[in-house]
This record gives sequence, C-alpha cells and structure tokens, in this order.
Amino acid sequence: MSYVHGYTTRETQRLLEQSLILEDLLHTGTSFLKGERVLEAGCGVGAQTRILARRNPDAIFECVDISQEFIEQARGVAMQEGIENVTFIQADLYSLSYKPESFDHVFVCFVLEHLPDPAFALKIFKQVLKPGGSITLIEGDHGSGFWTPETGKSRMVWKGLIDSQIELGHDPNIGRRVFPLLNDAGFVIRDVSPRWIYADQSNPVLLNSVIHQIIAPMVYSAEKQVLDSAYMEQDDWDRGLTDIREVARHPEGTFFYTWFKGEGIKP
Amino acid sequence: MSYVHGYTTRETQRLLEQSLILEDLLHTGTSFLKGERVLEAGCGVGAQTRILARRNPDAIFECVDISQEFIEQARGVAMQEGIENVTFIQADLYSLSYKPESFDHVFVCFVLEHLPDPAFALKIFKQVLKPGGSITLIEGDHGSGFWTPETGKSRMVWKGLIDSQIELGHDPNIGRRVFPLLNDAGFVIRDVSPRWIYADQSNPVLLNSVIHQIIAPMVYSAEKQVLDSAYMEQDDWDRGLTDIREVARHPEGTFFYTWFKGEGIKP
Repeated sequence: MSYVHGYTTRETQRLLEQSLILEDLLHTGTSFLKGERVLEAGCGVGAQTRILARRNPDAIFECVDISQEFIEQARGVAMQEGIENVTFIQADLYSLSYKPESFDHVFVCFVLEHLPDPAFALKIFKQVLKPGGSITLIEGDHGSGFWTPETGKSRMVWKGLIDSQIELGHDPNIGRRVFPLLNDAGFVIRDVSPRWIYADQSNPVLLNSVIHQIIAPMVYSAEKQVLDSAYMEQDDWDRGLTDIREVARHPEGTFFYTWFKGEGIKP
Repeated sequence: MSYVHGYTTRETQRLLEQSLILEDLLHTGTSFLKGERVLEAGCGVGAQTRILARRNPDAIFECVDISQEFIEQARGVAMQEGIENVTFIQADLYSLSYKPESFDHVFVCFVLEHLPDPAFALKIFKQVLKPGGSITLIEGDHGSGFWTPETGKSRMVWKGLIDSQIELGHDPNIGRRVFPLLNDAGFVIRDVSPRWIYADQSNPVLLNSVIHQIIAPMVYSAEKQVLDSAYMEQDDWDRGLTDIREVARHPEGTFFYTWFKGEGIKP
C-alpha cells in the first residue's frame, strides 16, 4: 500500500507529537463507556490509540492497521505507557474478518485520506457496527491551509503535497467530504464540525508548535513522493519547505488549517 | 472608486441581511463604553452600523463612506430604526479631516479588501486614534471558501470572484493578513481569530441562509465585474452560480468560509 507519509522513525515521532498537540481539538466530545467495544480502523503507530485508551480506560479497543511495522511500533508505545485495554491486529481494512455487528463504536482518524475508496471502507465499518452504534470520523483538508508570509516556493511545496496524494488516487481535501461520505454510507449524522487551528506571532509558542510539530513535518513526510513524481526539483522543494519553517519565526508569521470531525449513528 | 459589489438596491438588501446572520459571529467580544467616540471607517449602507449602535447605545459613532449613495441609504436605515447615536459623513478614508487622536476606537469591517492600499488606510486610522485606543478589523478570506458538491463551473465562478478583485488591485484573501497588517501598522495585537461558518444539510435552515443570504449574493454582486473582465462567458457564469445555489438543497451540500477578526491597541 502506498502511504504518502512513509514509514520512518522520524515520521513516527511526528505522529506521536502531533497527536498530543491536537488532543483537545480532536478528541473533545468523544467518549466510550465501560465495556464498550471500539474498533480503531487504521491506527498507524498508535498515536491516537494511546489518547483513546487513556481517555476511555474502561472501553475495549481493537486497533487495526495494514502495516505490520506500524502495528509493532504501536504495540511498543502501548507497552511503554502501560496501556492494557487495547489489542493490535495487522489487517487490511477492506477485508476485516470481524463478524457483522461486533462493535459499539468505530473510530477513524487521518485514515480515509490515504485510501483509494473511502466510501467502500465506510461500508465495511458500518457492517461491523451494531445498530445504534456510532462512527467517529476525523480528516484533514489540505485545501484549507494557508499562511503568511506566503512565498511562491512555499505555495509550490504545499501544492506538491496535494498533487502527490491525488496521484496516489487519494483525496487530500477529504475533510470537506466528511458529511457527504457519512451521509452516503447511510449513517444518521449526529454532528459534523470544523476543528481549526490558527496561530500567529502574537503567540510564538503555539505558532512554533503548529509549524514545527504539525505542518512542516507533515509536508516533509511527503518529500520522496513529491520528488519522485517530478512535480518539483529538489532545490525548489528545499527552499519552499524552509520558507514554511520560517513562518514560525517571521514577525508576520501566521498559519491556519482545518480538520473536520463527524459523528454518525448506524440506524 | 471601483467597488466589486456594485451599488444596487438588491445589493443593499444583501448587506443588511448578511449582517444580521453574522452578528454573533463577528460582533461577539466588541463593546464600546458610555461616551466613547467610535469611527466606523467604510460604513457602506450601514449594515454593521445599526448593529454597533444597538449593541453600544451609549457610545457615539461617526460613520464614514466614500459613496454619497451609500451614506444616504445608511441614513435612511438609521432613521427607520430610530438610531440616534450615529452621524454619517461622506468622505474618502485616505483623506479624513479628523484631528489626530480624535477617537477612542476605530471599527473596520469588510473594507480593506476593497482598498488598493490597506496599509496606508491603517496608518490613517492609527493617526485619528487616541493612544491606548483600539482598532477592530474584520475581513473575509475568499481563499478559505470551499463547498460540496464542487462542480467545475462553481469553482470557475469562485475563481472569477477572486480574480476580479485582484484585477481591481484589491486583495480577496486579505483575511489571513489581518495579523500582519495590524502588526505592520504598529498596533499592539490584543487578539486575532478566525470566525468561520460551516453549514451542511444536517441543518438545512442554516445551510440555506449561508448560501442564499451570504454566499450566492456575494458572488452575484461581482457578476458585472467578472463578465466585463472577460474571465468567463455569461453561460458558464450562470451555470456556476446556479451550482452554488444548488448546494443549499443538495443532499450532500456543505459550505465553509472564514473571516478573520483582529483587535489592536495604539501604543
């Protein structure tokens, strides 16, 4: 499976750091009760898993990812943190072996953007949900991102990030489709809302975190894919990525980005 | 002066309706005390004026616009609503005749996007402010807008709106520059925040208001400018604008748009 962010240790670090910065933004409003079974579909290195497990210590999580490497890293993180209410399983989301109606909830975060057929994945998630069970869907929208100062090269780099995901057959702007996707899959929509982050130089600590722990690493993680696709020369890429990093210390630096979070109920 | 939205009665109606829908979103956090003098720079047809006057009945407003036609409409609205704490004056913002340090506050809403030199305007506003006085700046960012379903023609129309403002020498994406502009002008930033609106078909009444009272009329108001600039043919324009309106009743309709509100203090 092609995964635009790659599978490196540095990338694992980014995913873990990013998840803590975004915890309140993304997890507020999501809670699971004692004994409820939750499927985390596409758990990756367990960045969201450890937050879910900590916030919902009495729920039981089954966390699935297609990458054996990610699953092993996720197990390592869970062991380090003493998390006991989670089982990790390597599996393809398109061919899950769970019986229908096995779960009370399904949690999907930053996953559908990496799938060629997100609608099909949602059908599967719906199948393994009990009637009355809920799905939580969180996806970013790269088309929502902008910043100041915007140099030509920084804009090229961002466009490279978007185009390289499109070339893989994925949708980098899937955030805006959270409502249509849930709706199409036949879920009853409980809520869809934008979860945005805005930072400027009046709060340099926040701006620094946003740039250096979320945005620049996210862009950097697509470097190989973008350069392989020949969208950009290495020099332009380097300059553009530097320009994005410079936003963090530029006196007029600002960054804005929006994720969308949706919750649907299986009728 | 070229004004992308034109000067028609239908447009006046739009500006008045839009202002009420956005009142909480844009005015929350802004209040002026008894006896304080407030300059509303670029009051237009008085859409924000009547809200300001109602929410701050003990402050004294001087509201300036370059268009004599707008000023007369604004006076009519104020008279109809029995507003007494407001004076309307036709004047060019670039050459205000107020003495330096005349005002406790300056309020600027949806104005800088229509000026070729917003930085210069801010200098003038700063001049007429007392030391310690505040400026409130609210601007939209057309680059922040997206929707589903997005047809090719609806995207063309949105691009036409943006390009036609650029051709006038204005910045349709000025929202993201609220922080840099205030900062450049030497204000101490108290706060800059995105003020977004998101609506989808799970709330058809809100979605309908957003599309039919804010978005579609805003786009429509640029029609002449866009067609005159030959960015688009009439047929494509009509189709694209219809597609935007259809978002309001499409089962998968969503719309997202962000304004930015900033407050700065004159040192």
